Amino acid sequence: MSTPPQAPTRMSRRELLAMVGKAAGGAAMYQAMTALGFAAASPYSGPIRLEGAPRDVSILILGAGVAGLVAAYELRNAGYHVKVLEYNHRAGGRAWTIRGGDEYTELGGASQRCEFDRGLYVNPGPWRLPFHHYGILDYAMRLNVPLEPFMQVNYNAYLHSKKAFGGKPQRFRHVQSDYQGHVAELLGKAVNGHLLDASVTAEDQEKLLESLKQWGALDKDYRYVSGPASSDRRGFDVYPGGGLMPDPVPSQPLDMAELLHSGLWRQISAGNEYEHHSAIFQPVGGMDQIAQAIYRQVADLVQFDAKVIKIDQDSSGVKVVYTDAHDASAIHEARADWCLCTIPLSILSQIEVNVQAAMHAAIQAVPYEASVKIGLQFRRRFWEQDERIFGGITYTDLPIQMVSYPSTGYGSSGKGVMLGAYIWGPNAYEFTAMSPADRVRTALRFGSQIHPQYDKEFETGIAVGWHRVPWTNGCFGLWTDEARSRHYRNLCQIDGRIALAGEHASQIPAWQEGAVLSALDAITRMHAQIKASV
Amino acid sequence: MSTPPQAPTRMSRRELLAMVGKAAGGAAMYQAMTALGFAAASPYSGPIRLEGAPRDVSILILGAGVAGLVAAYELRNAGYHVKVLEYNHRAGGRAWTIRGGDEYTELGGASQRCEFDRGLYVNPGPWRLPFHHYGILDYAMRLNVPLEPFMQVNYNAYLHSKKAFGGKPQRFRHVQSDYQGHVAELLGKAVNGHLLDASVTAEDQEKLLESLKQWGALDKDYRYVSGPASSDRRGFDVYPGGGLMPDPVPSQPLDMAELLHSGLWRQISAGNEYEHHSAIFQPVGGMDQIAQAIYRQVADLVQFDAKVIKIDQDSSGVKVVYTDAHDASAIHEARADWCLCTIPLSILSQIEVNVQAAMHAAIQAVPYEASVKIGLQFRRRFWEQDERIFGGITYTDLPIQMVSYPSTGYGSSGKGVMLGAYIWGPNAYEFTAMSPADRVRTALRFGSQIHPQYDKEFETGIAVGWHRVPWTNGCFGLWTDEARSRHYRNLCQIDGRIALAGEHASQIPAWQEGAVLSALDAITRMHAQIKASV
Repeated sequence: MSTPPQAPTRMSRRELLAMVGKAAGGAAMYQAMTALGFAAASPYSGPIRLEGAPRDVSILILGAGVAGLVAAYELRNAGYHVKVLEYNHRAGGRAWTIRGGDEYTELGGASQRCEFDRGLYVNPGPWRLPFHHYGILDYAMRLNVPLEPFMQVNYNAYLHSKKAFGGKPQRFRHVQSDYQGHVAELLGKAVNGHLLDASVTAEDQEKLLESLKQWGALDKDYRYVSGPASSDRRGFDVYPGGGLMPDPVPSQPLDMAELLHSGLWRQISAGNEYEHHSAIFQPVGGMDQIAQAIYRQVADLVQFDAKVIKIDQDSSGVKVVYTDAHDASAIHEARADWCLCTIPLSILSQIEVNVQAAMHAAIQAVPYEASVKIGLQFRRRFWEQDERIFGGITYTDLPIQMVSYPSTGYGSSGKGVMLGAYIWGPNAYEFTAMSPADRVRTALRFGSQIHPQYDKEFETGIAVGWHRVPWTNGCFGLWTDEARSRHYRNLCQIDGRIALAGEHASQIPAWQEGAVLSALDAITRMHAQIKASV
Repeated sequence: MSTPPQAPTRMSRRELLAMVGKAAGGAAMYQAMTALGFAAASPYSGPIRLEGAPRDVSILILGAGVAGLVAAYELRNAGYHVKVLEYNHRAGGRAWTIRGGDEYTELGGASQRCEFDRGLYVNPGPWRLPFHHYGILDYAMRLNVPLEPFMQVNYNAYLHSKKAFGGKPQRFRHVQSDYQGHVAELLGKAVNGHLLDASVTAEDQEKLLESLKQWGALDKDYRYVSGPASSDRRGFDVYPGGGLMPDPVPSQPLDMAELLHSGLWRQISAGNEYEHHSAIFQPVGGMDQIAQAIYRQVADLVQFDAKVIKIDQDSSGVKVVYTDAHDASAIHEARADWCLCTIPLSILSQIEVNVQAAMHAAIQAVPYEASVKIGLQFRRRFWEQDERIFGGITYTDLPIQMVSYPSTGYGSSGKGVMLGAYIWGPNAYEFTAMSPADRVRTALRFGSQIHPQYDKEFETGIAVGWHRVPWTNGCFGLWTDEARSRHYRNLCQIDGRIALAGEHASQIPAWQEGAVLSALDAITRMHAQIKASV
């Protein structure tokens, strides 16, 4: 196939389905649709097949993150001579997991050594895998990387605002149930008061009221009030017991006005977002496991500690100049027929690259998000033992923005590592400006407003401010709509013998899926061009 | 402690908190509250301590299900002489997991041998563990039973009605997003049209509108329409890709009237119910693992194959007559000072029991729910491979009511077992009347309307109709409000030297937590009475 696989594959699938539908009717078409797999539309349509690669064509890949690794794996399988240059002394890039014993030195020179106990980790970069991120999940499954559910929504985690409810964290289940209940009651009031007769037919009103009562946990008079219906959602003050234990006591919903002004409703739809829908996964043992599994397939192709300082090309090939990452005076050169560059734009924009003006402008056009993640090890899993929070996320308007509980090892008696902060925007700049130790201290100070156990149980922490990560200078490409409309296509076009890939060259910034899809798309087009040119 | 531990423990905790609050203010009180653990109110307040048991007091426990096992474990730890009689040749009762090689003969004589492959199973009884079921979870954690998340809500599973949308299953994410969006739009219309000015202050209206827009994924004009906002919830027709893959294409929301009349909204709040809130768990390997872990602690106390036929008592003790479960002529007798009977009321009501009229009436007062579960083994995990459904539940108005996908082994390449039906109410009677093979065939016939792959991929199935289970004659005690107000306290009072326990003696019927709490409550009161009587 000499064209991108997505378009023809999707077309032929559609054609086939149309044919089946015409010949055998809708049920057969649906059956064929599910049998063909991937009934939900995705730009990923299964493993690519790059057939008919000419002999002796070499492709140099810059960067051994997810995009570079996927490209190396597929291009070698297609028959190309592949070499990968990687700045770090490990593969995976931002698909990075920090464990005890790992050392990390950031821009500015501050070094951290992770002191987590064995088996505990933090993912400073990506940490979850939506069920519809077909590409990255397909690599995980093909390479037998075990997956476990990521607990995106935890009804017993907290929503917290220092300005609401006296600063006391509220359980997600209270805010979620009560917002839904109050909305249902208000709409029921409008319908029952015949205020919406002009908009909704009588027949639809009847169904709407029936649905609001059930969905909103309203009582027989369409009110959301303390009682069995609302407590079956938000939980009881005293839960039903056994034998002659005390009778259940229903709980009292939050006041609607206070709830509206608290702003805590902002987070109750987080799990309703497509990228956060259950099922959502994490690799067992840390997010780096998928990248590492791909790396093991191509380890012989990857050269670590190679810092690219210049990318040149002419009509006959590509020349990349690089130094030893730890010795700028040790200058080397790599040559290949073609080059796939997955270096983040934040770094690439500082390197001399011989491309046309349009791609050059695109490379310069994308600022990178500042983001900070902080891992905190505690002596015991107090969030489970004291507060019955097993996995999930607590959101706060404190500068730490969120804390998250491990989605693994539930109920275990040992130590645990929480994500003590996941920060972006202006707060991230403030945290990045601090020393790593101060970031940890500050996360502890804020977090203890939600979890007072912090003070007693904390052991050790590690903080990654992405603007200070030497090999990315930022977390991910922060495309504006305007920049995308001006520069995106120019960034993704093959320029001579050079193509770019990575999450920055995708419409799903920050997600590993963007890196996978951009790599597959770029190498498919490059393959077609190579075949056409021989 | 000679009284139920719950009341005094809760009282002292409250007193302590009030004291802290008075002395040091709300923040300190909250801190103390979380530090004390179990901040959410539960009748379970941690492991019980039955101290000061007199020497040489014997207690006979009838039934080695969860209630009987918990009681045996705690009473022996307290120093009592304990013996357990169990009808089956295994412990666990309804905490039952069927695996390949297991045989089961139901009332009527039909026998089934499970032919599932190694590692695959179905739980015919309980299958999930809410995070707030403190008692059963505490035993799981104390006995190191590994837990994994149960996927209660799967946004990519289906909601199906044969009468709606041409019988075509709808993705949960479409129904959930669209119901929420349409409700938000309607309420926004009422507020913007000043129809609710009498009910909601202008200040609250402003916040309400802001929240509806975000929560309902409305556009700038407060409309729920096809576009990026709604597709970020319900998913896209073409999802954003990488490089020069096709641009994203938003999806089209379902029509509000069709959605309202479909009834599919009935299931979108299933995950909002307190018992279904995430985090919700299952034991790794099957639900019987918790009961089996408790059993291993008390295995030397349990006698299998003992069919109780008479329970007698006088002022000096209890006498239980039982036969060999497979030989009614082999009659035995067991004597003890006290007796805890956990036999389901459906069975106990058929046994001669020497108790007062009030308890006798209570034993007779509770009918048992008919329920049917069917496990189906398929050659491959087509629900994952073809339809991207990883765990969770599909609801249908077909008689099979729901199907569920395994919450484990995600993405594995081998075979898989689905729950092919979970049926209660009138449908359950119909299925129970069929032969096991016909139940499986009927489940396949209905299920293939949702998953056409059934026809090609099915291998073997097993069906449990609880009304035909010889040792329960039903699934769980179906208390009406009226029966509960007349009989519940009489059922739970200690009658002479006999107390009852089990989910039927709890306010949480059908849940293992009810069995645990009723056992803890009954033995605590029995212990107090024993201590008072010496």
